[in-house]
Amino acid sequence: MKRHYDRLETRSADERAAATAAILPAVIERALQAPAYAGSLAGIEPADIRSVEDLSALPILRKSEISAMQAETPPLGGLAPGGAGGFDWIFQSPGPIYEPGLAFGDWWRVGRFLFACGIGKGDIVQNCLSYHLTPAGLMFETGARAVGATTVPAGPGQTELQARAAAAIGVTAYAGTPDYLKVVLDRADELGLDLSRLVKAAVGGGALFPSLRAEYKARGIHCLQCYATAELGNIAYETIPDAGLIVDEGVIVEIVTPGTGDAVGDGRVGEVVVTLLNDDYPLIRFATGDLSALLPGVSECGRTNMRLAGWKGRADQTTKVKGMFVRPEQVADFVRRHAAVTRARIIVSREGEMDQMVLQVEPEAQDLPALEASAAEIFKLKSRVTANAHGALPDDGKVIEDLRSYD
Amino acid sequence: MKRHYDRLETRSADERAAATAAILPAVIERALQAPAYAGSLAGIEPADIRSVEDLSALPILRKSEISAMQAETPPLGGLAPGGAGGFDWIFQSPGPIYEPGLAFGDWWRVGRFLFACGIGKGDIVQNCLSYHLTPAGLMFETGARAVGATTVPAGPGQTELQARAAAAIGVTAYAGTPDYLKVVLDRADELGLDLSRLVKAAVGGGALFPSLRAEYKARGIHCLQCYATAELGNIAYETIPDAGLIVDEGVIVEIVTPGTGDAVGDGRVGEVVVTLLNDDYPLIRFATGDLSALLPGVSECGRTNMRLAGWKGRADQTTKVKGMFVRPEQVADFVRRHAAVTRARIIVSREGEMDQMVLQVEPEAQDLPALEASAAEIFKLKSRVTANAHGALPDDGKVIEDLRSYD
Repeated sequence: MKRHYDRLETRSADERAAATAAILPAVIERALQAPAYAGSLAGIEPADIRSVEDLSALPILRKSEISAMQAETPPLGGLAPGGAGGFDWIFQSPGPIYEPGLAFGDWWRVGRFLFACGIGKGDIVQNCLSYHLTPAGLMFETGARAVGATTVPAGPGQTELQARAAAAIGVTAYAGTPDYLKVVLDRADELGLDLSRLVKAAVGGGALFPSLRAEYKARGIHCLQCYATAELGNIAYETIPDAGLIVDEGVIVEIVTPGTGDAVGDGRVGEVVVTLLNDDYPLIRFATGDLSALLPGVSECGRTNMRLAGWKGRADQTTKVKGMFVRPEQVADFVRRHAAVTRARIIVSREGEMDQMVLQVEPEAQDLPALEASAAEIFKLKSRVTANAHGALPDDGKVIEDLRSYD
Repeated sequence: MKRHYDRLETRSADERAAATAAILPAVIERALQAPAYAGSLAGIEPADIRSVEDLSALPILRKSEISAMQAETPPLGGLAPGGAGGFDWIFQSPGPIYEPGLAFGDWWRVGRFLFACGIGKGDIVQNCLSYHLTPAGLMFETGARAVGATTVPAGPGQTELQARAAAAIGVTAYAGTPDYLKVVLDRADELGLDLSRLVKAAVGGGALFPSLRAEYKARGIHCLQCYATAELGNIAYETIPDAGLIVDEGVIVEIVTPGTGDAVGDGRVGEVVVTLLNDDYPLIRFATGDLSALLPGVSECGRTNMRLAGWKGRADQTTKVKGMFVRPEQVADFVRRHAAVTRARIIVSREGEMDQMVLQVEPEAQDLPALEASAAEIFKLKSRVTANAHGALPDDGKVIEDLRSYD
């Protein structure tokens, strides 16, 4: 039996670097044909962008920017080189933000994940992700087409009907959010329905808690998760439970300090930034807003691509202090202005019914009054600066920590 | 510009008869490879079934029978020659009844209808039929793929989001139930959104009332309806408003007296019975339970296939009288037993808190006591028989009319 989906998954570091060097210039060149990139990447020579390091010099693209670009140039904000008319599908996600899709060729690369879950020809997958407005359902649908599985297009509701369908049809696999499978299984138990043929689960769209995975395992269901977004499709996926998520072969992933485009390095937590190697919709350095980290080493499954540690929270830490917005970009600006400061972190708290802001910096031995003056200028807020030993600030990807209780 | 979807639509009567003579034996032969048909069509020689007349000798297949067959042999009741595993999709409709589908090749033939609506490359279709459990949404989705249109897979809810999506994306066409388009348009009006680019509507799944079509027309929207079911896909479709529904080229339609398999003839109202010319799922003489009639002549649009008059109600007239089921099949049995009786109709009413049953027959001059005795035997109920002049009974497809009020 085939152990890997294709030859791409087991490439050596050299092969992968060579492939990146070949594809990145082509993707950048294609991107430059889109009006939006013609502006943001003006002056970039595609042939110069041949590695992740080269890529890291290009600007970050945020979801909020796409939303604004789309409002100005509907429906896709000028980001698609071929325009919106070349797509089979246009979706709407909360924001609103609009995403394109194609019906053929496993456009979101979910087939690779389903294969890793052991799903293929002969399987019947109950697809409990929504097909309506969001692309989630059709992402998994096109993935199932790629691996030759039959699906029951079910969506995320009508649980009793779903339980009955799964039993009558003899469903062998589940696709959906981590939690909803338990809802269906519990309802089937109540109704006395036999879902014992359902032994595989491909989940995404939310956190898979270890206790839930253990419960599925106890029922004989092998459950693996992927990390995907509406804009990018599959970004990374599990092949072995709790051994990290292997990066998909159709994207390039960077982990950066929130508010900057700079790599965190050394397995530290940072924001996941993804470049989508897709000629139809070449997203260049799209900031997901999600925090993760790289795992050291390679997977025991033989796939050689880098691995993400899983979801570590949201990167967008923008908050309000005394009525003023405090943004990660401002923290990054602060660090940039002071050569002696290597890291900074804002702690927001509440004392005596008043917001308080502390700016922690590394390393020790700083000119604190000067830093406080600089911070007051950047944040338009008074704050207390504290100096900390190198490595003292937590490595959790946060540059703004809000301790106030909103209960 | 192309006036017809393909050459099939404008075939002469001779060409169509020759095509039927070629395809029917192949479809019957394929059907015989399915376990269910191996039983019900045992002894049938495929080469003998070459016309609609030949077909009319074969047994009718009712939805209720499929449901029972599926309960016995899940999931598809042995009706698919290739088994259930060859399908991309399995759906569940109320009953429950399970229907198969394929993702490619416009399996339900909705593309022909969308083309007749003027929908094609360059159009963006908001598809407001559900993609979940029912095949309706994916039927129109695969039709849109066939004509090269982009879709916004939307489903039947989240009206405000839908109105915003239609405006932002610049949707040009609607697919959905007749009524829901008005819901979206009214909401867009409330929100001050401009949906003026939406000028085409392909509707199905319910009655399109003339006043609603007029309202759409007043808004500049050209609205046409189709007649489709979950088992069969597209059966017939409008090409000109209010000029009948042209039968699709992938099915053979008969109009029969409910409870029998006999053609009503002469444009009379009867049950729509459909044979699906599809090797993957060859439904032979499937009784839809819907009433319609054939229109005389051919369409002005140049398509030569026969036309249905539209939906005339439900054929399943089974009811209970004094606690006993009275079925259309029993009325048919009664007519068969009496050479002098050409038509019969049961009228059920309520007099003095008691059910009353009258059996009307055509023509006049009958042996009423003998008929009453026969009726008592067939229906296990006492009834009064009345003789009526030829043509006196209404031509509405009903053989059982229930006048009791259930309010």
